[in-house]
Amino acid sequence: MALEITKDLLERVEDLIQNQKDKSLSKFFSDFHHADIAEVLDELSFDDAVYIIRLLDSETTSEVLMDVDEEVRENILEQLSAKEIAEEIDELDTDDAADVIAELPEERKQEVIQQIEDREHAKEIVELLRYDEDSAGGLMAKELVKVNENWNVLTCVKKMRLQAEEVTRVHSIYVVDDEGKLKGRLSLKDLLMASTRAKISDVYIPKVDFVHVHDKAEEVANIMSKYDLEAIPVVDELGVLVGRITIDDIVDVIKEEAEKDYQLAAGITQDVDSEDSIFALTKARLPWLFLGMVGGLSAASIMGVFQDAMEKSPILFLFTPLIAAMAGNVGVQSSAIIVQGLANDGIKGSIWNRLLKEISLAMLNGAILAVLLFSFVWITKGDFQVALAIASSLFSVIIVAGLVGTSIPLILDKYGIDPAIATGPFITTSNDIFGILIYFSIAKMIIGF
Amino acid sequence: MALEITKDLLERVEDLIQNQKDKSLSKFFSDFHHADIAEVLDELSFDDAVYIIRLLDSETTSEVLMDVDEEVRENILEQLSAKEIAEEIDELDTDDAADVIAELPEERKQEVIQQIEDREHAKEIVELLRYDEDSAGGLMAKELVKVNENWNVLTCVKKMRLQAEEVTRVHSIYVVDDEGKLKGRLSLKDLLMASTRAKISDVYIPKVDFVHVHDKAEEVANIMSKYDLEAIPVVDELGVLVGRITIDDIVDVIKEEAEKDYQLAAGITQDVDSEDSIFALTKARLPWLFLGMVGGLSAASIMGVFQDAMEKSPILFLFTPLIAAMAGNVGVQSSAIIVQGLANDGIKGSIWNRLLKEISLAMLNGAILAVLLFSFVWITKGDFQVALAIASSLFSVIIVAGLVGTSIPLILDKYGIDPAIATGPFITTSNDIFGILIYFSIAKMIIGF
Repeated sequence: MALEITKDLLERVEDLIQNQKDKSLSKFFSDFHHADIAEVLDELSFDDAVYIIRLLDSETTSEVLMDVDEEVRENILEQLSAKEIAEEIDELDTDDAADVIAELPEERKQEVIQQIEDREHAKEIVELLRYDEDSAGGLMAKELVKVNENWNVLTCVKKMRLQAEEVTRVHSIYVVDDEGKLKGRLSLKDLLMASTRAKISDVYIPKVDFVHVHDKAEEVANIMSKYDLEAIPVVDELGVLVGRITIDDIVDVIKEEAEKDYQLAAGITQDVDSEDSIFALTKARLPWLFLGMVGGLSAASIMGVFQDAMEKSPILFLFTPLIAAMAGNVGVQSSAIIVQGLANDGIKGSIWNRLLKEISLAMLNGAILAVLLFSFVWITKGDFQVALAIASSLFSVIIVAGLVGTSIPLILDKYGIDPAIATGPFITTSNDIFGILIYFSIAKMIIGF
Repeated sequence: MALEITKDLLERVEDLIQNQKDKSLSKFFSDFHHADIAEVLDELSFDDAVYIIRLLDSETTSEVLMDVDEEVRENILEQLSAKEIAEEIDELDTDDAADVIAELPEERKQEVIQQIEDREHAKEIVELLRYDEDSAGGLMAKELVKVNENWNVLTCVKKMRLQAEEVTRVHSIYVVDDEGKLKGRLSLKDLLMASTRAKISDVYIPKVDFVHVHDKAEEVANIMSKYDLEAIPVVDELGVLVGRITIDDIVDVIKEEAEKDYQLAAGITQDVDSEDSIFALTKARLPWLFLGMVGGLSAASIMGVFQDAMEKSPILFLFTPLIAAMAGNVGVQSSAIIVQGLANDGIKGSIWNRLLKEISLAMLNGAILAVLLFSFVWITKGDFQVALAIASSLFSVIIVAGLVGTSIPLILDKYGIDPAIATGPFITTSNDIFGILIYFSIAKMIIGF
């Protein structure tokens, strides 16, 4: 069902732009959804993209601008005048408008805001710019339908018709008192079913979920998805209704959060994708690789201490990659389960219970794998002591790695640091080092070099 | 805003259950959202949970059942009679009802379906059970509001009132022809603004996004989030409107998909969380650990071939964990970027271009890290040849690991296998082996043992 952007389609558009066939271009795009136009623009040169943005009407292009890649948007906005940007902003809902303006350089922000024709709209955008982008205030839009509890259904419908013109999708009708404080809600369905003479105060539902303007975006996402809400009103410190957040913004929050955690686990700093430049990708990948290298050098110097053992039992050194890899794997597994649990609000009980569970789990996994490894090494190499040293090291390493993987994200979370940072290279690298240290210490005890 | 389940609260509930204070219990829970009751039930013993389910009215408990953990639901349903389950099912929307029934053992399914009072409802549920749970048909509900294009607005509102009673949330009103084929849509807002005498065929919007009943859940999620849709109609092979999918179901699909990818990257088979039993967690973690161990043994036997070199250049062996770790890290980074790109439909251009980009990227990262490693080893160990061998191995290993990490998910995807399986232990383990092989081969060439 989604449109496919083919090479032919792109060539046709480029051809029309080169020959300045404005009418044909407008006609060509008139059937397109703005999300599809955005995909075409992502593939065009910046000059061509600007050409299309200037050509089509701003009702369409404002939405297109919201959908193109951030890099493309930045480049297009650089080439538009403050007045042109203000025209796009005029067509956007306040939340999207604030997001676009927030991306502009400081001095342009002022210019653009001054050029916005609808001064009420401008005032609302300025209000939204005050909030942190990861808070409810940063997500919410000012567009909503609200009615006073003292009105009757008829007045309500009349006033609503005016308000509804401004609002793309009416989810709920919020009921406020004379001071603007949130009292409850009405659904469009209820209104459709109620008699026109009824009083709002008699028909509204006084129970309404809401969030505070400074609540974190992640919390809002958890609440909306837990209670299956499609929109949630936002109130300020006094309980006054100041905005609403819709589910489509929350879908973006959930996606971004998941992508960020995934990338951290894979050792990529956030906010890159496969289409980014080689330089941006290097910048995102090099730091973790550097950390890995420093870890590898530490492992090398630990092994250096045990170098004498190499002459006595060279076979021990063959198993260092195995021990290091297992330490890393177990650490990543345990930390991932904790990070995911924390994200879903699913970690119950004390840290000690959690660690106890992880120890039992690690002992079970460790015992199974250690027995297998012991049998394999004993049978193939015929050296009981070496087999015992390697297998008991594996057992210990699995337990320690599990504990490290479990405790680090819990500790980070306790101190308000994103626990997702602890997965991936961080855990792998530290567990490599622990693993090798434990391995050679145990081997030394058993074999005694 | 979300309710916190405290120890006190749980003790109070358990106390009330023990003393069979049914009235107090009903009153206690009457203010609770079903998602909160579900959280309480997740913490209670199964017997207590069943007690609550039997006590509260099925309008509430049916929703509670949808929100409890899968394991809890399974246990509760085991203890309810077919008739009791059917009563819960009667209260649920068809999509949720079908999900619950699908979880039952085969022989109970029939029993429960026969006990459903509303035969129309039962028929619709049976229809939904036909579809794969990961398809549009598996996600959709039969509840929707549809009107005939030949009606006028007044008839439409009358008929809608009847239909709307069955539908929890009215997103869009779908317009069909006499054969039930989807023609377009009307928004509630449009209807609110239209005159009562207007003909539906004159006011409806003929452009409507839809999906086919056999489309994959992931595709539906991509379309709905791309086009910012809160509901999408589903049509069968003949274009007949058969159901609709709402955004809250899609939020679940997006979350599950993200969790699955994250867990695969962390070496955990899907569908466990931190609250699962030690046995379930072991089952999810052991296979990948076993794979890691086999990889470690392969690495050990490769190193065994080069064991002679140990006497000549023992220092080489100190760096095997470093080389193996870097190969793993680079592999995970490259594969994660590809997996994420594929999930977001963001991989454009040919595989060859993608590999070329990865080679350039790996060469840049590899060159920087190799120069650093070379300098460090040369300065600290004072052996030019060894430093050269290690650094040039690192450079080659980074390039090969990047290529492996990039190509495996692309190849898997081409053959219709979930590329996410390629991240994590799979890539780490295979790259460990490649890495060590390359390392010793290059070292042999340079140092010549």
